[in-house]
Amino acid sequence: MLQLSKFPIHTLKTSPKVSDNRSTSLLLQWGYIRQAMAWAYEFLPIWYRVLRNIEQVIREEMDNAGYHEMLMTILTPREYWETTGRWDIPEYFKVPGWGDTEYRIAPTNEENVTPIMGEFIQSYKDLPCCVYHIQKKFRNEKRAKSGLLRGREFIMKDAYSFHRDIADFDSFYLWAQEAYMKAFTRLGIWDDTVMADADGGAISDKNSHEFQTFLEVGEDIIVQDSSWYCYNLELAAWVPDNKNSSEAEREVEYIDTVDDIVNMDKMTKYFEAPAWQMLKTVIYKLGDSGKYVGVSLRGDLSVNDIKFWKFIRQKHNEEITLANEADLEKIGTVRWFISPLTDAQLDVEFYGDESLKTVKNFFGGANAIAKSTKNMNLSDLDITEFWDFNEPKEWFTSLNIPWEKLTFKRASEVGNIFHLWTKYSRPFGLTYLDENNKMQDQVEMWCYGIGVSRLMGVMAEYFMTEKGITWPEHIAPATHYIIVIGEENLEKAIELWEQLEATGKTVILDDRMGRKLGFGQKAWDCELWGISNRIVISPKTLEQGGYELLERGEESKIVKI
Amino acid sequence: MLQLSKFPIHTLKTSPKVSDNRSTSLLLQWGYIRQAMAWAYEFLPIWYRVLRNIEQVIREEMDNAGYHEMLMTILTPREYWETTGRWDIPEYFKVPGWGDTEYRIAPTNEENVTPIMGEFIQSYKDLPCCVYHIQKKFRNEKRAKSGLLRGREFIMKDAYSFHRDIADFDSFYLWAQEAYMKAFTRLGIWDDTVMADADGGAISDKNSHEFQTFLEVGEDIIVQDSSWYCYNLELAAWVPDNKNSSEAEREVEYIDTVDDIVNMDKMTKYFEAPAWQMLKTVIYKLGDSGKYVGVSLRGDLSVNDIKFWKFIRQKHNEEITLANEADLEKIGTVRWFISPLTDAQLDVEFYGDESLKTVKNFFGGANAIAKSTKNMNLSDLDITEFWDFNEPKEWFTSLNIPWEKLTFKRASEVGNIFHLWTKYSRPFGLTYLDENNKMQDQVEMWCYGIGVSRLMGVMAEYFMTEKGITWPEHIAPATHYIIVIGEENLEKAIELWEQLEATGKTVILDDRMGRKLGFGQKAWDCELWGISNRIVISPKTLEQGGYELLERGEESKIVKI
Repeated sequence: MLQLSKFPIHTLKTSPKVSDNRSTSLLLQWGYIRQAMAWAYEFLPIWYRVLRNIEQVIREEMDNAGYHEMLMTILTPREYWETTGRWDIPEYFKVPGWGDTEYRIAPTNEENVTPIMGEFIQSYKDLPCCVYHIQKKFRNEKRAKSGLLRGREFIMKDAYSFHRDIADFDSFYLWAQEAYMKAFTRLGIWDDTVMADADGGAISDKNSHEFQTFLEVGEDIIVQDSSWYCYNLELAAWVPDNKNSSEAEREVEYIDTVDDIVNMDKMTKYFEAPAWQMLKTVIYKLGDSGKYVGVSLRGDLSVNDIKFWKFIRQKHNEEITLANEADLEKIGTVRWFISPLTDAQLDVEFYGDESLKTVKNFFGGANAIAKSTKNMNLSDLDITEFWDFNEPKEWFTSLNIPWEKLTFKRASEVGNIFHLWTKYSRPFGLTYLDENNKMQDQVEMWCYGIGVSRLMGVMAEYFMTEKGITWPEHIAPATHYIIVIGEENLEKAIELWEQLEATGKTVILDDRMGRKLGFGQKAWDCELWGISNRIVISPKTLEQGGYELLERGEESKIVKI
Repeated sequence: MLQLSKFPIHTLKTSPKVSDNRSTSLLLQWGYIRQAMAWAYEFLPIWYRVLRNIEQVIREEMDNAGYHEMLMTILTPREYWETTGRWDIPEYFKVPGWGDTEYRIAPTNEENVTPIMGEFIQSYKDLPCCVYHIQKKFRNEKRAKSGLLRGREFIMKDAYSFHRDIADFDSFYLWAQEAYMKAFTRLGIWDDTVMADADGGAISDKNSHEFQTFLEVGEDIIVQDSSWYCYNLELAAWVPDNKNSSEAEREVEYIDTVDDIVNMDKMTKYFEAPAWQMLKTVIYKLGDSGKYVGVSLRGDLSVNDIKFWKFIRQKHNEEITLANEADLEKIGTVRWFISPLTDAQLDVEFYGDESLKTVKNFFGGANAIAKSTKNMNLSDLDITEFWDFNEPKEWFTSLNIPWEKLTFKRASEVGNIFHLWTKYSRPFGLTYLDENNKMQDQVEMWCYGIGVSRLMGVMAEYFMTEKGITWPEHIAPATHYIIVIGEENLEKAIELWEQLEATGKTVILDDRMGRKLGFGQKAWDCELWGISNRIVISPKTLEQGGYELLERGEESKIVKI
């Protein structure tokens, strides 16, 4: 029981100005949380009770799916991270100990779980196996953004499973998906949650998914059709739509144009041709080497930075930034007139978007002001490799249902399942003996994350109204809220609370007497905290023989004591 | 349910050689824990189930006592620690962020809870109030020692209460004590746990206590009598026993003696007088200033380093180390012949133990080899202040029961309650309005700690036998352990497990088939893990119509299915 006279929490009249995130501001205002520092939150009793309810649902569903709960350390040795080559990631905290010793406070626990399970996995009979824990994690975010949704300190449920091969994982995956589905159903958000493919880009892997809950303020955009097709916009695949690819290729022509064709609109008007027939090229600089890479695509599409960044990171293991005017000058080209023409011999590694294959006889630049090109075709261009680099548009057609347009919806990630391949099992040397007593060193790993504190933030947003958060009854900070009017009725309230708790209910007792708090404020707090059963014990209700019970969505009534 | 085929834990034949602590070694051997690094432990599923059971008992008792659970941050801002002057404590980790930013991973949470509650405490009506949380804490121990009992990473239940004055705390304290008593009773250790006064030394405060559980391998020594008198040896008060204080003081005499009276035995023989009549003096050097301090006491007593260290730290805020021969030469004295004689004018600040007041006409040194003094009395000595600096001896008489000797017992601390005075509330500027609407700035704080992971280590030691840990049934990793013989009987075992769990029991299913594990090993593991009900389902038991049930301390029997 939470007794408000003994925990003198109070809600504020206005939002404190510390968060750039609407729901986090309201949670601060409504007495759920406090900020210890930017992006690290104190969970006050009201919020913590919700956390424990959510955690328990997740725990039960993980247990039911056969995952075993344990508790790994937060402080981890440097050697673990050196083993996997992750010691120097700047977003992961390093903690100095005595002398030269350094530790890490864990941002994730692959580096713990792999050596632990490595000890226990000896025979093929020990596979598959799976564990999880629920614990705080830490990231040295340079500038965290979304209040509770992405902090320096957060609570994660992270599970890990170990398999002899991908086939072994297949049956397993259904349990994991089912566990997530059941948990999100019990938490009341499944109707608006989808399972989006998490690796649609460079690595195609049907065994990785993100669970995304639709929210107007979500930080991701989900692309879906009415079938199961569902992707994060960052990852969604391009749906080929043929343009004029059956046309005959004409000879390339260099032409003098004008200097002000500096956007797609002006280009299409000038050339009197559709945007898709314009060749658009963007050049980036690689972080360390200073080399340049470029990407060309149809003029009606845009570069999906995430897809291109992932692709380049795999090729070069370097970060990319947009080339500026000085870079372009150095290369020997100029913005709005860039083209990867073989003739131009620019010192740039050009990649082509798959969309280029659907168009013949492009218009585009010729790498100098007011110099253009018409009838460009792939054979005129110096393209190293083709790949899907474009960002889906709302007019795309569904890949699965050709007569359907795609739907774009904002969403927030609430969970994920990722295939880790042998990225961790190999450096830690995991092996097992197979049926023929032969040593095998291929142990496939998956991880399963639910950011519990993030999920709670998403749920707060999902269930939020102007009057408070309408938590599902079993998730709310309490099932019942008792307001007592008149100090002399406190004893009756305590009796009632004891009766309720004896039947498995939970109670917040609003016994804040003589604090200049009127009934209105107390009733208001009950709504802010989303308690679905409000009880009032007052001289008036006692006169009527009992207490007043107001259940969510019902008329209030007097219940005889 | 813990299904051993899916979490392939295995116990070891011998103890891994990583711990200097017997029980920690056995816990490693028995598959309870793993070491991530020195003094930071991974809690494997078996151990974690015990942890959660213990945590739940503590949580329920704290809730019953009216404390409200919350969850504070681990990552804390530097400013908090600068506010209380605790930023530069070397045993507290500092964590670098971006640029010059530094954080701390919290070793304790006074610095969080005080500003949080400071916001809510506005009126005298808001006091007393109290909160707690259960979370990991971190200390940068230079060399941790006792395995699980004192690590770099540990789990604490820390509660905090806020009061207008000490009187307000008095009624409160009984609840807190009762909560601890009830929790330790439910955990099965209360019969061997005592509440020892925690500040018997320099600060006399009846409102601070340590809860100590008697254990042969305990790191503390508890001094007690058959009444409630009970102290940590470090803190236990001296019990005055008068010697010859009624004798007339004689004139001091300087005498030539011999150079080999270099221990108490030789001195008593040489002077033909009892040890208590010898004046013993020890000199220490102060850490920073290099000044010297000394302490004199009766020859039958020894200096209690902790008492003296606490006293000197209050006076000088410096650490002390024993003076060496060079120091003594510099001062103008020599070991075994030191005396704080006024005549000698040594450049040392001398303190006197209270015991000096019970003796007249001491024998002692005269600050040179083979030079001694007889008939020394307090008026001959340059003593700045008297205090209780001695260490209790087993022949001490009880303070409360004059006909009783004290008992000394080894113990381990499992909890504490400390008066924090206004040490934190003042720097954080806590105030409230009293009945007369006057601002008051005196908010008394107490903290209440239970080191949950330490307590679990103490309990493991307490319930440990050669065969395993005989956990109380409701604390054990499970109430039932099912061993299945014959793959074809697995289904029956799963049915039974479901029946048991439906009635609130918890189960470990030992379905490790075909792993060269005999029945003996499985039965052995059941004992190691302290499960009080062992069930065997085998062709033989099924022939007899059911399964074999072996309850702890009973004969095994067949239970019909």
